Amino acid sequence: MAATNAGGAQVFRYGSMRAQVAGFEAVLADGSVVRRMGGLLKDNSGYDLAGLLVGSEGTLAIFTALTLRLIPRSARRLTGLLALPGVESAVALAAHLRGAVPSLTACELLLPDGIALVCAHRRLPQPFALSADAACVLVECAADDDPAGELAAALDRAPAPLAQAFADDSAGRARLWAYREEQNESVGYVGVPCKFDVTIPHASIASFLADVRAQIAEAFPAAHLYAFGHLCDGNLHLNVVGAPLDADAGLDALVLGIVAAYDGSISAEHGVGQTRRDYLGLTRSAADIAAMHAIKRALDPLGQLNPGKVLGA
Amino acid sequence: MAATNAGGAQVFRYGSMRAQVAGFEAVLADGSVVRRMGGLLKDNSGYDLAGLLVGSEGTLAIFTALTLRLIPRSARRLTGLLALPGVESAVALAAHLRGAVPSLTACELLLPDGIALVCAHRRLPQPFALSADAACVLVECAADDDPAGELAAALDRAPAPLAQAFADDSAGRARLWAYREEQNESVGYVGVPCKFDVTIPHASIASFLADVRAQIAEAFPAAHLYAFGHLCDGNLHLNVVGAPLDADAGLDALVLGIVAAYDGSISAEHGVGQTRRDYLGLTRSAADIAAMHAIKRALDPLGQLNPGKVLGA
Repeated sequence: MAATNAGGAQVFRYGSMRAQVAGFEAVLADGSVVRRMGGLLKDNSGYDLAGLLVGSEGTLAIFTALTLRLIPRSARRLTGLLALPGVESAVALAAHLRGAVPSLTACELLLPDGIALVCAHRRLPQPFALSADAACVLVECAADDDPAGELAAALDRAPAPLAQAFADDSAGRARLWAYREEQNESVGYVGVPCKFDVTIPHASIASFLADVRAQIAEAFPAAHLYAFGHLCDGNLHLNVVGAPLDADAGLDALVLGIVAAYDGSISAEHGVGQTRRDYLGLTRSAADIAAMHAIKRALDPLGQLNPGKVLGA
Repeated sequence: MAATNAGGAQVFRYGSMRAQVAGFEAVLADGSVVRRMGGLLKDNSGYDLAGLLVGSEGTLAIFTALTLRLIPRSARRLTGLLALPGVESAVALAAHLRGAVPSLTACELLLPDGIALVCAHRRLPQPFALSADAACVLVECAADDDPAGELAAALDRAPAPLAQAFADDSAGRARLWAYREEQNESVGYVGVPCKFDVTIPHASIASFLADVRAQIAEAFPAAHLYAFGHLCDGNLHLNVVGAPLDADAGLDALVLGIVAAYDGSISAEHGVGQTRRDYLGLTRSAADIAAMHAIKRALDPLGQLNPGKVLGA
């Protein structure tokens, strides 16, 4: 988790793994061990080696121990699924709720085709009738006091949703989350997906989704795009099934090129690894990549650590 | 601010500068410019260059532009000054308030001699009578709704303070803050201070202060230690007046040696610069410092950027 700077649905509230790492022990390429496990909250004594190693995907060092920041478990949780007229209103609702609801811990985008897929393959009832161009937002609030009043007050100040369902018991909450959580596995019933994990600036999420959907349809008529993601971070997960998976076919280049044109990131939380390595130059400049290479050579001159990942030769 | 990863009284609530930097432009030693100003909230495409450059004190690159995370201004602020029997009870109160008061934005330690110094040199009235071994906590809460109820409820669940004063208007709040803010300048009336900016693990703050005070008194009988700081981070600012200022006299080595023995940091928020450079080895291991040197050589092979700072030759 630390090596990849893992994310998830609650990053906008609590930060990614980098924000949780308060201390670490790591083995460097020369076999030396750096250990600073104290967990001091303020430490400006030299370079932030921990922050650099987190997210370096094992290419600069290997973590062997961590001190983690822990967040108290909230006593109360409330989950809601809201249907809205489209992606644009879903993005607007997410921005409103983020500002108005301090207890908000998740704000996920779901689309009707993805929900239908889960219903078909997990044998769940449709949560409510949805037109094809609707969009759903799954919200979750967590607090020690019941967050229902806070959420209801914020929803009262937003356009009324087309439909809504709420649950504050764990079984009911799990039923609502299934429409989101099961999409990843359900996509596999349709075909082998090509997966993208991208960040798009908030203001462009709706137009990006329309754009990427149209361009995929034009280039790969047999393909279908299932999209969901974390609205408050602008982090979209795109799953394309029915398109040729080999890189030469051009799906990766097409989608990631559109992401770059929207000033997005080609990897929001899953990292670069080897499948995204050759696309790094789409969003990071030559000077930026040269600096990364210089750091890699400095800490791993023989290229022994996770070779071929993140950076090319 | 970004180059030094500046901190302050509100770091425990909002993070230091590193947490505010959402995008940056920087000039590297070779003259190349790295620019990623987009402010994406999730971006795992390669190494976290921004986080590395923040706090590198200008030794790895020069920032020329930043995209900053902004925090909405709270409509209501409440400041309180509470007298407690000693440092240990001040530390305990800070830990309690941090957990119980979500609106808490500052929790500062003040000691009677520092308050008396401000009163003498700024012609302020004593806030209340204080015995020599008392300790004060300056708390501030900020929220859009009045935070008074939340703070009062939390204080009701803690041991009653010996004395207290509150203000929620800006003039009254400034009067309370003066007892803390004016200490830095007031110390200058007594002599030229040797200043320390250290982090000490919470559980050891009281014993560290007693220990460092006793050891300074023994080694430098003419010296006086004025201490204050940010309780929730364990960040103490020590000002020693009346001791010889040249490094050979041994005050730096004495104090920073005690900090290291308590598993603290020799620089919490002010950075290393040149006066703390030779003490880096007290809290960072040889492998850790070697990794920093390797990064420095990689990004600034000719040693042109802020030479002599943070790392020695």
